[in-house]
Amino acid sequence: MYSTLREHIEKIMPLTDEEFAFVEKHFSFKKFKKHQFMVQQGELVPYNYFLLFGLTKLVYTDPDTDKEYILAFAMQDWWDNDFQAYYTKTRASFSMVCLEDTQALCLSLDDFTALRAGLPKIEHFFLEKVMAGFLSAQRRILSMMTSNAQQRYEQLLAQHPSLAQRLPKTQLAAYLGVSRETLSRLSE
Amino acid sequence: MYSTLREHIEKIMPLTDEEFAFVEKHFSFKKFKKHQFMVQQGELVPYNYFLLFGLTKLVYTDPDTDKEYILAFAMQDWWDNDFQAYYTKTRASFSMVCLEDTQALCLSLDDFTALRAGLPKIEHFFLEKVMAGFLSAQRRILSMMTSNAQQRYEQLLAQHPSLAQRLPKTQLAAYLGVSRETLSRLSE
Repeated sequence: MYSTLREHIEKIMPLTDEEFAFVEKHFSFKKFKKHQFMVQQGELVPYNYFLLFGLTKLVYTDPDTDKEYILAFAMQDWWDNDFQAYYTKTRASFSMVCLEDTQALCLSLDDFTALRAGLPKIEHFFLEKVMAGFLSAQRRILSMMTSNAQQRYEQLLAQHPSLAQRLPKTQLAAYLGVSRETLSRLSE
Repeated sequence: MYSTLREHIEKIMPLTDEEFAFVEKHFSFKKFKKHQFMVQQGELVPYNYFLLFGLTKLVYTDPDTDKEYILAFAMQDWWDNDFQAYYTKTRASFSMVCLEDTQALCLSLDDFTALRAGLPKIEHFFLEKVMAGFLSAQRRILSMMTSNAQQRYEQLLAQHPSLAQRLPKTQLAAYLGVSRETLSRLSE
């Protein structure tokens, strides 16, 4: 399972066996069942997650209406979290919930700090990953401002075709902010 | 003017005089007039900008309707850009426009790459900055999904009071996605 992490990092930078052994020992492996909460809105966030397997959603539930707003999905080879809560040790604004059985490598903030301090070159890798996340978020903001549901559906299909196929329709509709019926019309 | 950059970096990590001299030589200084475009939608983006002085907006203009959508503002001590276009050497999706006379330190992508390669420890600084940008974008997405204009106005006031005060009302209204008249009611 750690070989997936090594391949993932080495897409960006090479590591010696010794360096990767140091990286690896900061992570722990966990399994989660479908419907399980990896992050719980209102609670602290002990880990950042690198997904090996499965499918998750990042979701905000309005406490007054119970309405769900889906910010993002993630699957294998992706990092996902309420990064704000993780990184600032504050309570989560979102939940991260398994839509399928999921396996992840887990990195606590203390281990993240120790990893960066002990192997500063790994910051090159994280800078590239966080930059990609930031660019994706900036595109999402523009898309939310300027695109209708049909266009956002097409953007998702174009950017992440395999993800779009795997998503339950109800989840996809919640992500696009449309009803299940509207989604059926969009996807005809 | 470079002392501002040094203070900005040293809020996150110390640098020796020799290290800062290496950082500094990768930047160039430029002045821009109010209304000038620092980044032009549809064009390549030669620089990333660290603002020393002034006020800018990041804006998408719908080519069909000429309607403006404001993604973000920036002022002194902030980095701003169409980061996607800068970082991937593609054409800008947004413009970055001066709302006041503005001065910036400019970093080309080649210089950014050379700076990272020549002084790897600087990636620690950029990782912290990009992380902050990413967290802010994730908060913005949640806010766009769940908050009305009144709430978004209050969030802006709470997070960036000095920015909110300086913004022309028309620009603030465009950022919140409301009319000038609605904004007047919100800010009563």
